[in-house]
Amino acid sequence: MIDANVLQRLGETLAARKGADPASSYVAGLMAKGEDAILRKVAEESAETLLASKEGDKLHVVREVADLWFHSMVLLAWHGLKPDDVLAELHRREGISGIDEKASRQFSGKPT
Amino acid sequence: MIDANVLQRLGETLAARKGADPASSYVAGLMAKGEDAILRKVAEESAETLLASKEGDKLHVVREVADLWFHSMVLLAWHGLKPDDVLAELHRREGISGIDEKASRQFSGKPT
Amino acid sequence: MIDANVLQRLGETLAARKGADPASSYVAGLMAKGEDAILRKVAEESAETLLASKEGDKLHVVREVADLWFHSMVLLAWHGLKPDDVLAELHRREGISGIDEKASRQFSGKPT
Amino acid sequence: MIDANVLQRLGETLAARKGADPASSYVAGLMAKGEDAILRKVAEESAETLLASKEGDKLHVVREVADLWFHSMVLLAWHGLKPDDVLAELHRREGISGIDEKASRQFSGKPT
Repeated sequence: MIDANVLQRLGETLAARKGADPASSYVAGLMAKGEDAILRKVAEESAETLLASKEGDKLHVVREVADLWFHSMVLLAWHGLKPDDVLAELHRREGISGIDEKASRQFSGKPT
Repeated sequence: MIDANVLQRLGETLAARKGADPASSYVAGLMAKGEDAILRKVAEESAETLLASKEGDKLHVVREVADLWFHSMVLLAWHGLKPDDVLAELHRREGISGIDEKASRQFSGKPT
Repeated sequence: MIDANVLQRLGETLAARKGADPASSYVAGLMAKGEDAILRKVAEESAETLLASKEGDKLHVVREVADLWFHSMVLLAWHGLKPDDVLAELHRREGISGIDEKASRQFSGKPT
Repeated sequence: MIDANVLQRLGETLAARKGADPASSYVAGLMAKGEDAILRKVAEESAETLLASKEGDKLHVVREVADLWFHSMVLLAWHGLKPDDVLAELHRREGISGIDEKASRQFSGKPT
């Protein structure tokens, strides 16, 4: 099992990039462009994940899911949130449902 | 800090759902529908994340990012992969780049 | 060549659905749910188009692009816009550029 | 009403770009990159349409829907299809359903 704190450390680094000199790093530059620029990247990495999956190359799938999680963590940091907030939400559902026995209710309680 | 092993436990549960009776749980049902059904959910949760962010409700953002990560973990399990593979990839980039100093190269090395 | 006015007629019908009894038709119901519900459908049909293309079934591609155009026309109607506004924009670019000689400027003038 | 044949003319131009010198135009270059590059643009323009709609600028919505239709026509051309195939599909549904009275069946007959 790898060092599970990579998300926490990454979250702290991303939080520190908010408001930093846009020229100082990729993330500082992305955050300076604002919310829509970050959301474009989330959408782009979601599409890349679809294409990588259809391609069937497992290493490519891992890289694209990493990109998707990374940019969704940039979005969290932009909102003043951190990866632990997402882990806590996943943990809360785990406690309620044995992870997915009731997940059809948990995970689709949306107005679609 | 919350229990950081929630992703590992969730990954193990999702792996066990592959091939299980489709009626036994939401995830088993989704996996039985196949790759495209899972990819539709990843795309849907990506769009939900955009809409939640524009709405500006932080709790809603957390819930949608949790849905996005959850369904991308279902995709990983469908491919025989696990969350640790993604964490290892994020850790590898951290080692190389101090997380994002070189991230513009690390995170955009795609043929766009 | 088929009857080219199908978009205009469809646009008029969709415009009339705005504010109609939500139970009277699929589109009236979707419009009553509001902007985000329409945007979810646009995102969903975009993902369906990707999956149909990768599947390689031409009839399926046509059906999904028709769904995508249909729901983007619902969005136009929600904003008080009509298909002719989009056709006029495409026509304007055609006049400027011989359609795509300068299209890299025309079609990518976005802050990405 | 504007010249309704803009889609047909555009479709013919796009068809002629397939196999052309990639350096000769934006579309020829995009087609030379292949299916996934075109699909990335369709996904990108779908996300841009969402963001423009939430921004509420009607002119921006028109431009992004034009981009979305344009790139979905590039995809059609890549598959040897043309805009008339999509118009014929919309016309077929119009004939069957009075456009949307039965559209909930017509437009959502997908395994979601």
